[in-house]
Amino acid sequence: MKILDQRLLPDSIKFITVRNAAGTAKATKDMALRGAPLIGCAAAFGFALEMRRLKPGSAAELIKTAKRTADLLKAARPTAVALFYAADRMLNMAVTFAAKHPGKFSANTLKQLLAQADKEARLVTKEDEDACEAMGEYGARLLPKNCVIMTHCNAGALATMGIGTAVGVITAAHKKCKIKHAYSCETRPYLQGARLTIWELMREGVPSELLTDNMAAHIIKTCGVNAIVVGADRIASNGDTANKIGTYGLAVIAKHHKVPFYVAAPTPTIDMAARDGGDIVIEERSTEEVTFVKGNRIAPKGVRVRHPAFDVTPAALITALITEKGVISPVTRASIKQNLAK
Amino acid sequence: MKILDQRLLPDSIKFITVRNAAGTAKATKDMALRGAPLIGCAAAFGFALEMRRLKPGSAAELIKTAKRTADLLKAARPTAVALFYAADRMLNMAVTFAAKHPGKFSANTLKQLLAQADKEARLVTKEDEDACEAMGEYGARLLPKNCVIMTHCNAGALATMGIGTAVGVITAAHKKCKIKHAYSCETRPYLQGARLTIWELMREGVPSELLTDNMAAHIIKTCGVNAIVVGADRIASNGDTANKIGTYGLAVIAKHHKVPFYVAAPTPTIDMAARDGGDIVIEERSTEEVTFVKGNRIAPKGVRVRHPAFDVTPAALITALITEKGVISPVTRASIKQNLAK
Repeated sequence: MKILDQRLLPDSIKFITVRNAAGTAKATKDMALRGAPLIGCAAAFGFALEMRRLKPGSAAELIKTAKRTADLLKAARPTAVALFYAADRMLNMAVTFAAKHPGKFSANTLKQLLAQADKEARLVTKEDEDACEAMGEYGARLLPKNCVIMTHCNAGALATMGIGTAVGVITAAHKKCKIKHAYSCETRPYLQGARLTIWELMREGVPSELLTDNMAAHIIKTCGVNAIVVGADRIASNGDTANKIGTYGLAVIAKHHKVPFYVAAPTPTIDMAARDGGDIVIEERSTEEVTFVKGNRIAPKGVRVRHPAFDVTPAALITALITEKGVISPVTRASIKQNLAK
Repeated sequence: MKILDQRLLPDSIKFITVRNAAGTAKATKDMALRGAPLIGCAAAFGFALEMRRLKPGSAAELIKTAKRTADLLKAARPTAVALFYAADRMLNMAVTFAAKHPGKFSANTLKQLLAQADKEARLVTKEDEDACEAMGEYGARLLPKNCVIMTHCNAGALATMGIGTAVGVITAAHKKCKIKHAYSCETRPYLQGARLTIWELMREGVPSELLTDNMAAHIIKTCGVNAIVVGADRIASNGDTANKIGTYGLAVIAKHHKVPFYVAAPTPTIDMAARDGGDIVIEERSTEEVTFVKGNRIAPKGVRVRHPAFDVTPAALITALITEKGVISPVTRASIKQNLAK
């Protein structure tokens, strides 16, 4: 599997070749690939590759290796639930296959397994692609004409297998001539907004400007921003949403200015096992990602640093969730349940 | 005059020698020195140096050169009123001197003028130093015990001729053992928080951590922050406060979390000629300061970027102004007038 190394964007376009689950997990952990839906899709293919590599010889071996592989993939990052969703889907496929093919596998059975793993991974990917299209459509309809929109981090084509979630909404609305201007917050420390989102917006011809994160409130107040749209890494069953650090502050600022705050995310992002945001694990990443920019130190040696990679935005601050199944508004436990049942 | 080049901090300590008003203005514009009170003090000395260089030969010449010098200094940056205050004070000194010494200047009169210019510049500086002490005292009294405090940008010793304004409050409170923890927001694009404030806090032994700006809301929500203190570049007569970009968003987030939001600034920061924040000019600086970090490009070529260097926080979001004359709370036109009359 070839993975675009997003750490080098937009300076250079290089691919990493990954041949197994460990390589997929490493690329995910090191953020060569990132974006909740994308790491899910990559995990699905990483799982399929691992089966191809290990060639389990029996149902029992398949279950054992499938569990180990799913665990390995899931350990790469703790917050994005799409990763768990995809790994578990592949695991379920394996368990079901094992139940249907008890005992030792013939060469033909193994061939079937590998074909089925590939098929399942492609399905996860296709579903994500379709979900992006649908979210783009639903989201674009929500936005007003001459929309001045803001987004945070990169929930774009680079974060998914399709047109993106939040950025997909912007580009879909742009195709309908509804976007007057788009602002991309640079999204420290990893600068996904400066490196990826603004690059995608420029490539799609969306009139856009880059901001430092701390400019958001001033720009919202002075530049007529009338919508904010972001992606999500995990949504609890009550609508509390974990997304890239900075999302929560932006939601608070949006509320103060009475600007609608939208979260676009496919339904695999919704974690019905999480009762609310308190159940979502927030990944704390390395301090060097904060204190170094492109290999250069920007803070004193010995400095103590925090680096929560995500924050949780309470459902009450979210105007609507945009999923591939439609728009959820107001965002409540009940409305989410209803949307998932569609 | 030797000016510490703050652009190189904390990596290296280098001084720039400035011999006239143009050099002072350039160092100010290029942000070798920054911080509203400090650029005021530097302007006062830049003015004195310029008089020394030009040696005006008569009262008429003095008035002419003094006006030109004040204008040159004031043109360096548009937002910080301390700069205008200091330049105007030096100009007034010159005008008063000219009135007392009409006609041609003798060698002795010129000597008197230069001595008086030096004295006035030293007075501006001494007043700033004393104001910092007083603000530290007033501010420290305001803070609760075991205070978990947050600040933005650098309103520290480096920004003033004393212990600083906002950081002065923190270090003064630390000396009274009232600070449990301090958070410094890195303050993109110029990273004054990462390069200067956290460095000052570390040197003063204040338990502290560095954050990216977009972490502020999450940290306020989850880490028991119970006070925020920032400096100011200009305060309108109604209390609306221009300060480093990001301050406004932080104030909105503080209000949402019911955390007191303090502005520490000496009274020369108050611009009674500005009716409200709408009268304050917000400097738009170069886009390269956003797209390059330590000489490295962090965004695509050809990207469009905003770079407002300041924003305006409405008085209603400010719990109290801390000046050298005491604490102003609530922040209203009337309470400010009363404080200034002290």
